[in-house]
Amino acid sequence: MRNMAEERLMALDYTKPGLEGLYAPVRYGLGSGGKRLRPLLVLMGCEAFGVDAAAALDAACGVEIFHNFTLLHDDVMDASPMRRGRPSVYAKWDLNTAILSGDTMLTLATQLVSAVPDKVLRPVLDVFNRMAIEVYEGQRLDMDFEERPDVGSEEYIRMIELKTGALLGGSARIGALIGCATEKQARAVDEYGRALGVAFQIQDDYLDCFGDELTFGKPIGGDIVQGKKTFLLLEGLASGGPDSEALRDAMKLQPKEVRIQTVKRLYEKMDMEQRCRKAILHWTGRALRALKQTGLDEADLAPFHKLADKLTGRRK
Amino acid sequence: MRNMAEERLMALDYTKPGLEGLYAPVRYGLGSGGKRLRPLLVLMGCEAFGVDAAAALDAACGVEIFHNFTLLHDDVMDASPMRRGRPSVYAKWDLNTAILSGDTMLTLATQLVSAVPDKVLRPVLDVFNRMAIEVYEGQRLDMDFEERPDVGSEEYIRMIELKTGALLGGSARIGALIGCATEKQARAVDEYGRALGVAFQIQDDYLDCFGDELTFGKPIGGDIVQGKKTFLLLEGLASGGPDSEALRDAMKLQPKEVRIQTVKRLYEKMDMEQRCRKAILHWTGRALRALKQTGLDEADLAPFHKLADKLTGRRK
Repeated sequence: MRNMAEERLMALDYTKPGLEGLYAPVRYGLGSGGKRLRPLLVLMGCEAFGVDAAAALDAACGVEIFHNFTLLHDDVMDASPMRRGRPSVYAKWDLNTAILSGDTMLTLATQLVSAVPDKVLRPVLDVFNRMAIEVYEGQRLDMDFEERPDVGSEEYIRMIELKTGALLGGSARIGALIGCATEKQARAVDEYGRALGVAFQIQDDYLDCFGDELTFGKPIGGDIVQGKKTFLLLEGLASGGPDSEALRDAMKLQPKEVRIQTVKRLYEKMDMEQRCRKAILHWTGRALRALKQTGLDEADLAPFHKLADKLTGRRK
Repeated sequence: MRNMAEERLMALDYTKPGLEGLYAPVRYGLGSGGKRLRPLLVLMGCEAFGVDAAAALDAACGVEIFHNFTLLHDDVMDASPMRRGRPSVYAKWDLNTAILSGDTMLTLATQLVSAVPDKVLRPVLDVFNRMAIEVYEGQRLDMDFEERPDVGSEEYIRMIELKTGALLGGSARIGALIGCATEKQARAVDEYGRALGVAFQIQDDYLDCFGDELTFGKPIGGDIVQGKKTFLLLEGLASGGPDSEALRDAMKLQPKEVRIQTVKRLYEKMDMEQRCRKAILHWTGRALRALKQTGLDEADLAPFHKLADKLTGRRK
């Protein structure tokens, strides 16, 4: 199903005479790969309820284009020169291009998500728009957190639920609606995707610190170097006592290699692997329990279980 | 009707605990006034076909929020500190806020435009999304033109048709669809709004140079100072001969007061008032001819005639 989405995405022919300046960055952004997790959830959501995934293919591309629109704008907001190992649109072209081609992608996404049968158009559109708003809210909180010294890990979870979870949940829900699921069933797969998104993000925070560079695909310790508020840091700072104090100080150490090593040692002392594992299990458990509410049998749910295993079972 | 739209816009309660950073700029952007021309066209479009304008009120607010979203992002792209006599969102907050709250406004706009009866949801949404794409395309061409020495006035017209005309046309068309117009009638009011938008922009270019500062609301000669490609400049450069050469040189003069005076004198010599008037008449005529295709009687069309007079009959 991932291949179906990939092929359709690559077949979308965004180009117009004299408007390469608008559409080339759209194609470039979409061509940078990624896991295509969101379209996969749309297709899985549809097929689980007995409707051929092909019916959800345009909507699947729509949510992926939405996701890539947020990446274009996020890279501007973070002044980020790289994305998935290539120059970001912001760096390859410029600020204005990343903004305007990003805007274009949001509307193209809305067009594709609207390419569903009339009877589900309104509910699908409602889910899509509400989910988009949640993503913006999550991004706003994320930016605000960078300025605040007192962020708690519950607030952090709420933020990633909006910024990452809402889109995974909304994707699965849109698929379910196209698959003619009931409202209750659609809400259940939404809850699954949303909780899975939180588990996935905590895992990502963990791997950024303790992962294997080759498997993880990014330099290890990047979050520590950037002083990013992650689940590990917020948990560590909130636990109190001398280790918390030491962690606060360690985050200021120079050079960065010393900082990374000292922070990692403190995380180990605080048993952060165990804490992360516990949180990931909590959110994965929530995701899987939500699935039960669909009333589908185990065979139909197998792809959802497999995906959860794959996403949160990523090895170091 | 303008008041109806204004009141509803001001009654939209965009706020959420902990998310003032996202929603305060939305409210600020919407509160900066403006002519509310686009919602007016939605309401007029609806009422002309015999349906109470109240049915189109949410959609009217939607197109106005869309318009204001483009202003937030345009101000970032132009690094513009002021908008309608107040600091722009970009200047009052920052770059990231203008981008993210702008994105939010685009989705809020889509939500409001979708608040129409089921039977017109798809056509309304199609018009809205297509019109949005045209606005981005127009903005891209506008940015590209700034870098190009060889822009012709026909290309310029095509650009403003996209950047300004599409939104006015689309607004009228959305209103007509909500008013249960036929496809042909809806296309006719679209054509009216689109042509009117072009006439209005040419008039705006003219007034920027020859208007009265008090009536126009902006310092006169701003386009000349910024070296902006306007209808006047492109027509002047394209006409050939010694005056064209002189105009090209005059645009480089310092200080700016001398540049403004010299360019204006050349425009007068080239009879630019007459040329602008001719172009405005051409596009207004096209707008009014399109109206005939609606098959409505003169009484129903009176508001459209009145608006055309008002917009293109603005005095110096």
